[in-house]
Amino acid sequence: MTTRLTQQFAFLQEIDKLKGILRATAINDGSRPENSGEHSWHIAMYAMVLADQAGSEVDITRVIKMLLIHDIVEIDAGDAPIHSQFDTADQDAKEQRAADRIFNLLPEDQSKEFRALWDEFEAAITPDAIFGKAIDRVQPLLLNLANDGSSWKQYDVRLAQIDSRIGEKVNKGAPWVWAYIREKIKPWFAARGLD
Amino acid sequence: MTTRLTQQFAFLQEIDKLKGILRATAINDGSRPENSGEHSWHIAMYAMVLADQAGSEVDITRVIKMLLIHDIVEIDAGDAPIHSQFDTADQDAKEQRAADRIFNLLPEDQSKEFRALWDEFEAAITPDAIFGKAIDRVQPLLLNLANDGSSWKQYDVRLAQIDSRIGEKVNKGAPWVWAYIREKIKPWFAARGLD
Ligand SMILES: [Ca+2]
Repeated sequence: MTTRLTQQFAFLQEIDKLKGILRATAINDGSRPENSGEHSWHIAMYAMVLADQAGSEVDITRVIKMLLIHDIVEIDAGDAPIHSQFDTADQDAKEQRAADRIFNLLPEDQSKEFRALWDEFEAAITPDAIFGKAIDRVQPLLLNLANDGSSWKQYDVRLAQIDSRIGEKVNKGAPWVWAYIREKIKPWFAARGLD
Repeated sequence: MTTRLTQQFAFLQEIDKLKGILRATAINDGSRPENSGEHSWHIAMYAMVLADQAGSEVDITRVIKMLLIHDIVEIDAGDAPIHSQFDTADQDAKEQRAADRIFNLLPEDQSKEFRALWDEFEAAITPDAIFGKAIDRVQPLLLNLANDGSSWKQYDVRLAQIDSRIGEKVNKGAPWVWAYIREKIKPWFAARGLD
């Protein structure tokens, strides 16, 4: 039991670092960038609240677990903002190495369980992963809406780019949510001739 | 569906404020106070990882949900540090009013569901709530251990106070965890004659 707890607490102490990984989008009040730890909490709350927007084949408790761990690899790999230019293959390789290192801090059974959940989320094929990915992409839109486009301005984003980079995936997992959100964000882009 | 989504997103936008509520304990690297949003994520991870330390009567997915919402009332009521002096009745009244306001932003069925989970956690009677409360109290000990006692120093805490304010509750929900953690923190207090 002692060895097991030592491994579990080594992991729990390591992941504290996620609170220091900064994302492109500011929190609602615009005062500072959101960090990936608090983002992961907010996204898990999105899953709890929007559970009834998921298809009946979605197991929301598995989605919550996926979302709680989905960004942990950023401790080593950093956050790659969706509207920024980055080398996808390079970022993927970094994230794989990060997953190897960080999940392996856990006892072997849990290391395998968490890694399998993370791999499933990344693959985005199962209904749980598709729904989780969908709502992960909705939350930054809502923050941008609240703080006058903190990351939209930084990356010169147009509505067409939101549609292709974000809309398709949200629509796949949570179509009513996408229809609702697109109506909400459209005026911001229209007002700037970016629609 | 539109009304429902409007209520759900009003709630999800409101709870962003939890990222601005600061706690007494610093994050591991000691650079700044932990906020209640990232704390809620970390605690939910504690539940996922320490699930096998819970009794078989504990439903860990309910515990995770309780922990995700347990601090939301702090948006209105603030965080009351465990080692600080505060008026318990006054703080309780503030938290009740906060729960009334914030959970009521949700559609009625979810408002009732979330409020019931929060009430159950606060009552600390069911096995799920007892386990959740136990691990909620463990995490600040680990942060203090990593950052040389950020809140222990601030509040002149002795080991006997940890035992009475924290140990009893951790021991009730997760006895092996408490035995393990107490051994880990004891040297810090002993080195300062505070054991
Ligand atoms: Ca992400």
